[in-house]
Amino acid sequence: MTIDIDRDRLVETMEEQAAIGGTAGGGLDRLTLSDADREARDWFVDCAADAGLDVRVDAFGNTFARREGTDPDAEPVLVGSHLDSQPYGGIYDGALGVVAALEFVRTLNDRGIETRRPVEVVNWTNEEGSRFQPAMQGSGVWAGAHDIETEYEKTDADGVRLLDELERIGYRGSEPAEPREPYHAYLELHPEQGPRLEETGADVGIVTGIVGLRWAEVTFEGQANHSGTTPMHYRDDALVAAADAVTALRRLPGTLGEASVATVGSLTVEPNSVNIVPETVRFTTDVRDPDEATLDRGVERMEAEVAAAAEREGVDYGVEHTMRASSVDFADRPVEAVADAVDALGYDGRRLVSGAGHDATHAAAVCDTAMVFAVSEDGKSHTEDEFTSWPDCYRSATVLANAALDLAERAD
Amino acid sequence: MTIDIDRDRLVETMEEQAAIGGTAGGGLDRLTLSDADREARDWFVDCAADAGLDVRVDAFGNTFARREGTDPDAEPVLVGSHLDSQPYGGIYDGALGVVAALEFVRTLNDRGIETRRPVEVVNWTNEEGSRFQPAMQGSGVWAGAHDIETEYEKTDADGVRLLDELERIGYRGSEPAEPREPYHAYLELHPEQGPRLEETGADVGIVTGIVGLRWAEVTFEGQANHSGTTPMHYRDDALVAAADAVTALRRLPGTLGEASVATVGSLTVEPNSVNIVPETVRFTTDVRDPDEATLDRGVERMEAEVAAAAEREGVDYGVEHTMRASSVDFADRPVEAVADAVDALGYDGRRLVSGAGHDATHAAAVCDTAMVFAVSEDGKSHTEDEFTSWPDCYRSATVLANAALDLAERAD
Repeated sequence: MTIDIDRDRLVETMEEQAAIGGTAGGGLDRLTLSDADREARDWFVDCAADAGLDVRVDAFGNTFARREGTDPDAEPVLVGSHLDSQPYGGIYDGALGVVAALEFVRTLNDRGIETRRPVEVVNWTNEEGSRFQPAMQGSGVWAGAHDIETEYEKTDADGVRLLDELERIGYRGSEPAEPREPYHAYLELHPEQGPRLEETGADVGIVTGIVGLRWAEVTFEGQANHSGTTPMHYRDDALVAAADAVTALRRLPGTLGEASVATVGSLTVEPNSVNIVPETVRFTTDVRDPDEATLDRGVERMEAEVAAAAEREGVDYGVEHTMRASSVDFADRPVEAVADAVDALGYDGRRLVSGAGHDATHAAAVCDTAMVFAVSEDGKSHTEDEFTSWPDCYRSATVLANAALDLAERAD
Repeated sequence: MTIDIDRDRLVETMEEQAAIGGTAGGGLDRLTLSDADREARDWFVDCAADAGLDVRVDAFGNTFARREGTDPDAEPVLVGSHLDSQPYGGIYDGALGVVAALEFVRTLNDRGIETRRPVEVVNWTNEEGSRFQPAMQGSGVWAGAHDIETEYEKTDADGVRLLDELERIGYRGSEPAEPREPYHAYLELHPEQGPRLEETGADVGIVTGIVGLRWAEVTFEGQANHSGTTPMHYRDDALVAAADAVTALRRLPGTLGEASVATVGSLTVEPNSVNIVPETVRFTTDVRDPDEATLDRGVERMEAEVAAAAEREGVDYGVEHTMRASSVDFADRPVEAVADAVDALGYDGRRLVSGAGHDATHAAAVCDTAMVFAVSEDGKSHTEDEFTSWPDCYRSATVLANAALDLAERAD
């Protein structure tokens, strides 16, 4: 037996939120703690109140809207995502997960379903990390990964303090920013932000975990020289060494694992002049894999490639490890609840590991967690062109609702 | 028979000029048309007047100081270089050539030598091109390569107009900025700015020409994507393509010619974020060779490498040719005058082609031209650390004096 959600209302609700901070390009500019974010939060609170939910805001602005269950001792099921966006983001990233969670409790209301467990819909503060770093900040504070006082003091590019903005928009709540009770499970629907579902023709993604990542900053130090008067054999060209390393890192994932990726996303050259041999090049490396041992091997090989490239060109090098996030394996129970819902609904589901971090990363440290992925057309993300069709929004939201209902009903 | 110059006076005169616009780091900050440049020009005019020379300033600030010859119909020999510097330049680049030319006429005075031809010492305006572009601007205007009205309107980074600065420092002269009569020859002494003389243990360089160069700007256009969610096979990474091309261009000179060089000096990445696959990369290419046909072949191969790199990564590309300077072969007569002086003085001279442009590039379009190179320690140039030992200053200035005397005496 499955429950159906209201397809039209889902689309209308998506369109309602998309009007808040909407851009001329059809996307969203709803940076965390901005006026647009306040408006979206107010809208969420109104929707929750209309659905008869009890709203509470914690000291970091994370907003929980609760529907009671029949068993006063049962641990609640938490469902949600985030309403903040990138500066030129799309209308699905984050919002789809919140809207689908709202649609789930509205559906329960429509059908008069009383669940055994309480259900809470959550809107996390600052998932994007565009304005204040790090990303997934609100869920991280809630889960105890970050100290709230430290995060309060973070400033944006204009030097504005996070706490001041949180108070200005009226979302520094009175509840402690921590789980106020044990949670049974956390479920999050999110667009894939990648092409794998579309590429394989799947309807929906059953997310079994989140990849780990290792970031580093590599520096090559050569010798600046005149590009006309310096013979080739006399050069120690930092850009040539970096280019050598970049091409090696393009090959690296193919030697690691099926799901490995490696990226050099940022690279700068000094002095960066047409007629001066580059002296200093700095670039970032980003290596991801679902398996920790594979990741460690990947970092080792990255360093070996960097060393070899430096040696070939005769430049000095340094590697600074700037970030490390362990991979997350989601718990069997909620993953199977998602898989069961996919099967019951007759969808073609594909199991995959998320290549991006999500609030679910932190939630998984608090309770059993799983995610549902919606198809992202062409894998586009963090752009106004982000697109998930309404049928894909509907399918993935229906999976979420059925999986959440399953978890909210189960005793175990 | 050779003439000797005054070694101590040469060093003293070098030190005098080095005090004008001298930096704490032991270099020079004497940007063209700055107050320091005016002071250096005034000093040059005083030195010339003290040596009994007749000074004239042309409409672009090029300053000529003339010592008459015995033959009223003979074409003069022009000797000189430039007194302007890079923002953090060394004390030799340019100044050594002007000081050595002054020392040459002082030596003629000391010894009561009357030359058949007039001798003119020149200080060219804006050789460096740091403040106003292009480099070698004054000699270019004088030789007719640039239109003076166009160059007058050039502005520096602060929007200040060249003509206003020229007038402000009092060096917009009354003479037309053009050769006022046919010249017999132009000779210029300059530090090598490269390591070849030092590397081969030569005392002095006999410069037989100036390399040609081709500059281009290459653009690779890929697709920005999330570094975590985008599988490797789905990427069109503009930086990977650029890195592929940079490593290919490192190899290119080895397939072209003994004196070929190729450089990617500037490279920028967009959006340049650690977790976004690079979408756009722009980089410059600088290919140089003494031979025009080799240069053309080099540019063809550069484009082929760029196309192949784009194809391998599946990105779009474009190549814009931004600058082309033809190679210059110096005339036999002045080159042999330099070579004869080297031999007569018992020095170990090495023939070489300049990898950098000089005022001699433009002078060569007006009259027979040659250059003398002084040893640059470690090839350093355009830095406060530029260094040419006093013995090397002396040796090269003595070669200049003897070659100039030879040309000033000869009838042919």
